Parts: sequence; C-alpha cells; structure tokens
Amino acid sequence: MRIIEGGGVTAPSGYRAAGIQTGVKESGAKDLALVYSTRPANAAAVYTTNKVQGAPIAIDREHLADGKARAVILNSGNANVCNGDAGLDHARRMCALTASELGLQTEEVLVCSTGLIGVPLPIAKIEAGIPQIVAALSEEGGATAAEAIMTTDTVPKSCAVEIELEAGRVVVGAMAKGAAMIAPNMATMLAVVTTDAAVPSGPLQELLSQAIQRTFNCITVDGDMSTSDTVILMANGDGAELGERDCARLYEGIEYACRQMAQAIARDAEGSSKLITIAVRGAATEVEARQVGIAVANSSLVKTAAFGNDPNWGRILCAMGYAGVEFNPETARVSLCGTGIYGNGAGLDFDENKLSAAMQAEEMAIDIDLAMGAATAEIFTCDLTYEYVRLNAEYTT
Amino acid sequence: MRIIEGGGVTAPSGYRAAGIQTGVKESGAKDLALVYSTRPANAAAVYTTNKVQGAPIAIDREHLADGKARAVILNSGNANVCNGDAGLDHARRMCALTASELGLQTEEVLVCSTGLIGVPLPIAKIEAGIPQIVAALSEEGGATAAEAIMTTDTVPKSCAVEIELEAGRVVVGAMAKGAAMIAPNMATMLAVVTTDAAVPSGPLQELLSQAIQRTFNCITVDGDMSTSDTVILMANGDGAELGERDCARLYEGIEYACRQMAQAIARDAEGSSKLITIAVRGAATEVEARQVGIAVANSSLVKTAAFGNDPNWGRILCAMGYAGVEFNPETARVSLCGTGIYGNGAGLDFDENKLSAAMQAEEMAIDIDLAMGAATAEIFTCDLTYEYVRLNAEYTT
Repeated sequence: MRIIEGGGVTAPSGYRAAGIQTGVKESGAKDLALVYSTRPANAAAVYTTNKVQGAPIAIDREHLADGKARAVILNSGNANVCNGDAGLDHARRMCALTASELGLQTEEVLVCSTGLIGVPLPIAKIEAGIPQIVAALSEEGGATAAEAIMTTDTVPKSCAVEIELEAGRVVVGAMAKGAAMIAPNMATMLAVVTTDAAVPSGPLQELLSQAIQRTFNCITVDGDMSTSDTVILMANGDGAELGERDCARLYEGIEYACRQMAQAIARDAEGSSKLITIAVRGAATEVEARQVGIAVANSSLVKTAAFGNDPNWGRILCAMGYAGVEFNPETARVSLCGTGIYGNGAGLDFDENKLSAAMQAEEMAIDIDLAMGAATAEIFTCDLTYEYVRLNAEYTT
Repeated sequence: MRIIEGGGVTAPSGYRAAGIQTGVKESGAKDLALVYSTRPANAAAVYTTNKVQGAPIAIDREHLADGKARAVILNSGNANVCNGDAGLDHARRMCALTASELGLQTEEVLVCSTGLIGVPLPIAKIEAGIPQIVAALSEEGGATAAEAIMTTDTVPKSCAVEIELEAGRVVVGAMAKGAAMIAPNMATMLAVVTTDAAVPSGPLQELLSQAIQRTFNCITVDGDMSTSDTVILMANGDGAELGERDCARLYEGIEYACRQMAQAIARDAEGSSKLITIAVRGAATEVEARQVGIAVANSSLVKTAAFGNDPNWGRILCAMGYAGVEFNPETARVSLCGTGIYGNGAGLDFDENKLSAAMQAEEMAIDIDLAMGAATAEIFTCDLTYEYVRLNAEYTT
C-alpha cells in the first residue's frame, strides 16, 4: 500500500471532479462539487440512522436500489433537511439536471447536501451552476471538489492510496467534510470514496459497511448525529482485475482511506485544540471496546479536562463506568500520553506537572485496558473548548 | 400540600441536623453534614448505576440491608472513590464513630461523600469533626447541613412541604447538592429526603424509586453520570398515621420535594446561564417521552444554541431524531418559549428576533409533541456556556 501525496477522489483511474461557487454560501466560498466516473460504476452507501433525514438521502436510496451510480453532485451551505416535498423535488432536480448535462440517466446520479437545516435550498443558484461544474470536470478536480463540500471545516480533506494486486494496481481515493454534529452511527457529514477496482455492488456494500464501523463510526465530536451523514463508495473497474486474495488488500485500502478521513474530521473538529485518540484493549468484544471508547470520547468532563491539560483519571474512569459494559475497576488500567495513571483500583503515582505538559501537544493518547478479553477499538475525538461554545452559540449562517 | 418556606430536612418532626467545617475543603467552607432521626426510622436509597462506585455506596448497601437507618453522615470536598480498601475502611469508620457518638449501632448510620475522585479521604479531619457535629445537631440545622454538602454549587438546596392526611399532617423535607457530572440514571450527586410519616421500608423504596424516575432522573447537566450519586429517604413515623388513601398524597409530597431539588440542581448547574425545561407529550410511553427529552437535553448543539439565544429548531429536531424512539417528523411539533417553530415537516413562520429576545430569560421552555400517543415527561437541563468549559478545564480542587 503506497500513499499518493495530494491525492483525492480523482486519483483512481476513470474519475473526474470539480468544485465551483454558485452563491448558495453567502461568503462566496465554493459550494458545489461533482464527482463523475467516465465509465459505469457499482456503488454502495451508508447513511445516518437519525429518524430525521435530509431529502437527498431519500433520493439516494431510490437511485442506489440497483447498486449502480456514475456521479455524485454535492452542495454545501444548505442541508436540504425538513423542507417537505419541495426538498425532495429539489434533490431530484439536482440529479436530473446533472444527468442530463452528463448524458446519463437520472438514477445514475446521487446527491448530497450539507449545511443549515430547514432553510429552502436555493435551487436556482444550483441549477445555474450545474452546466458550469460539468464543464469544469477534470482529472485534477479532486482537490477543488473537496474544498467545495466544506462548511465549518478549516481545511479540505482528501487522500488516496495505491494498492498492488496480483494483476496490477488499483487506487482508492476519498474526500470528506466534517466539523460538528458528528457522532457514532454515521460520523462524518459527507464522504465520497472512489476506486478503480472492479467490485460487484453486494460485496462493495459489505466492504464499506465494515470499514465504516472501524473508522467513521469511531469518531465523535459532540455526540450529535447529523441528519445528513452519508458515505458513498464508487467502484468503476478501470484498474486491474481483482484476484482471489485481492479482496482483503482492497479492503485495507478502503479502511485506510476511511480512517484518514475520519481522523482528519476529528482533528479539524469545530473549535478543538487537540486530537484525542482513545485506544481500548482487553475488551470482551469489539462492540464493547467501541462502546467504552465512545463513552469516554463523549464525556464533556473528559473533554474539558483535556482542554485544560488536567490529567484527571477520575473522569475517564467515571465515563468508562457508565458505558454499559461489564468490567472490574480493580483490574482495569488507564494510561494518558503513555504514562500509567490508574491501576489496581486506584490512581497511580505520576508526575502531574510533567504529564500536564505532555498533554499540551496537538495529539493526546488515552489507553484503556479493560482486562476482560482480547478485543480492541480505536476512537478519535477532540477536546471541548471555549471556541466550540463560541462557534455553536453564534453559528447561524 | 403546603410549601414550608425555608424548610429542609429538619422540617418533619423528630429530625435534627448540622453542618460544620473540618478542613477537608481547603477553602475553609463547611464540609461535614449530619442528619439524625430522634427515633427509629425506615429508610430507602437509590444509587448511581455507574460500574465505578464510591466506597460509601458499598457501605450503605450493607447498612440498609434491613431497611432501617437513623442517621446520615455526609462530607463534601472528597468523593472517596477509587481509594481501594482504605476507602471502604474510611467510610466504615465515619459510620462507626457517628454511631458511637449518637449511641446507635454502626448499621444504623449511612454515609455519603462528594467531591474529588481518587484522592485519599482525610479521615483524621473528619473523625475530629464528628463529635463536634453531633454536639451541634439541632431542629434548625437543616439549612447548615444543606450548605455543608455543596461542592461547586453556588446556592444551598433545601425544601419542605406539609401534607394533610386523614388523621392529621405529615411533612416531607429534602436537601440536595448537584452542579456537574449529572446525568439521568441517578442525576444529583447527593440528596437526603426526610419525612415523619410512618412507612414500611418496602413501600418506602417503591415511593422513592418512582419519584426519582420522574425527578432526579429527568435532569441532566452534561450527560456524565457520577460515581457517587445517592438519594436517601428516611421515614420516622413521628407524624400522623397514614390512612388508606394517604399513600398517594404522601407520594405527591415526596415527588414534589424531589422535583424541587432536581430543578434547583439544573438551575444551579455548573456555568449555566439558564434553566431549560423540555416538556415532551404525545409519546407512546413515559419511557420514550423521557428518552426523547433527554436526547434533546444532552445535545451540545441545542445547549450552545440556547446559550446563544438562537431559535435553532433544526438542532432540536436532529436530537429528537437520534433518541432511538419511533416518530414521524411530518406530524411532530416543536415550540420554543411558547412559539411554534416546527410543524408539518418544516420550520414554521416566526419572528426570529422576538423569539431570540424571549430566549434571554432565565428560564426557557422547549415543548415537543411526538404525536404518537398520550404519555408525557418533563426534563430539566441548562445551557452550555464558556463558564462551563472554564470551570471544568480548571477544576482540580
């Protein structure tokens, strides 16, 4: 597996992308993105499990019923959620116009929207932009597409990786946007993963679902699960054929790309000052390992202590205790930045000033050993800061 | 039911209390409280469901096995959690010395501790204080006892209510402390409820458990469930006898006292600027009503919007959507400060500036109609502010 520096959704063979500005965002920033496969592609998707879902998700479920898609049109600045029948109509029109400009069937186009909830989509602006964005499609367009899906993200998020197979090479590319309203059970707001491997749509869905469990569902910013979260995976078969043992290698590439995107989202979380990685081991099952890690990751008290560089193991232990997972506090162990802070049912001796200084780095590791089994999980989150409160108390555009 | 202004745990007949300073808190504030019944009393308790529990809870379970207790000794400034065998020994010694000074059996005394986790309890200071606090017991001591259990609370929390029964009157009194690390499934950190009604310990436990479901388990500050949360109810039979139909009236009094304490905790939550009351109706069951209310109450995005006086119904709807409860977003309705903001699957027309101005009051109401049934619940929480982050990033003593 080789990382392609600066790569994104157009790194695999046979993909074009673009990102342009249509005026949906009043700031004048880019707000419309398109990812296009030059040949027929199989596709899979995973959506938010929120009962309230954006109109685009309803349309994507329809269009993906056959497991095929050739383009994804995405806008930022407006999530097209809670807009009733008009919302559904707008999402359909985005697909229809994109299809017509590309010479495709409407059902071959998927749609994603992210931004404000409950504000009617300025469909005229988007419709005016679609012919322009189709004209702007290019093999180098992955980077601008990643820019155009940002909302409160401070950096665009892309990656690509090359995988050697028996019969040659394939590439996996990805782009994502995150920031806030991110929680397990569909973490990121939006991500598109592309590959030039040839994979039937059934196995493609399995690959994606498994990778998401271990990546996007392992990040949490504020415990809030969005109404729009969607991850789409396209496979157009423009690269090498998959041999018998290649499926596992391809999975590794997809999981890697998804993990890169998930970490980038946690690192760029709204108002965060540091990335927190919570590694849980010794769990009875992988599900329980995740459950404990997520309880710790969602604890406002752990997150504020991280912000304050306070090596407060009591709060970590407290969150482990209400995760709903069986363990023995007498045998569990906790380390912070590599230093043991809790074991044998009590706090361990450590240099508080030295550890507090270590916590000031941009990345902070919490290691938990439940001493119940052999399963592990890794969860990514961020601290809770003044800036998070400021951004979310003031965010209206 | 008549409210006794300024009343607390010593308002019912046959109770004495006191609160003193022993030096557990370095600030010099009061840190030891005692509640004592002059005659034998039945007692019931509900504890945190956190897997990590303070030593006092283990001791209280032993001492309450017979359903009887005559005194509760409580300290603040140190939670006596994760202190191993020494913690258990210290909790036992607090009960033993209190019992010996009061001429009781050790098993007749319960113990509660609240404050820092994982710091050895300064037992010598507490033991030096116990003879003093026994000497200080008085019928007017409820107020100082309520003061002595405060940690980051800004005001002491007490109440009392008189209930007319067929054969005369009984009184219910209560004190509580809260602030942070408060979540459903044992909300407050500590509360003691006293009554001079005569109730066997079995029914007493039922009354308490039901009242807690509707009161302390309906408040949430930050979603973090403490390792120490305990509510104790004592009934000493020093008041009027209960007639056949009096049990329901007594229950009302207990629920009222518990609700007063729960609301006071939410109102005084760490760093909060307003009390948020979330009334859910139209739910299929009371459990589901609570579940939806609590999801909304725990949403950092709803809480920061409340702080910013932003009538953001999208965030409320989003939190309702991930509560894990079945409902139809097309028929559900949401009001904020009495103004309809969401209905018929979309945002309603309202004057945003006027509503934002209304949100600036000290109390804010969110009303949710799930349109699924007839069950209701009322949840109390607070906003998420800069001050919450400051307090919890800096709290170490």
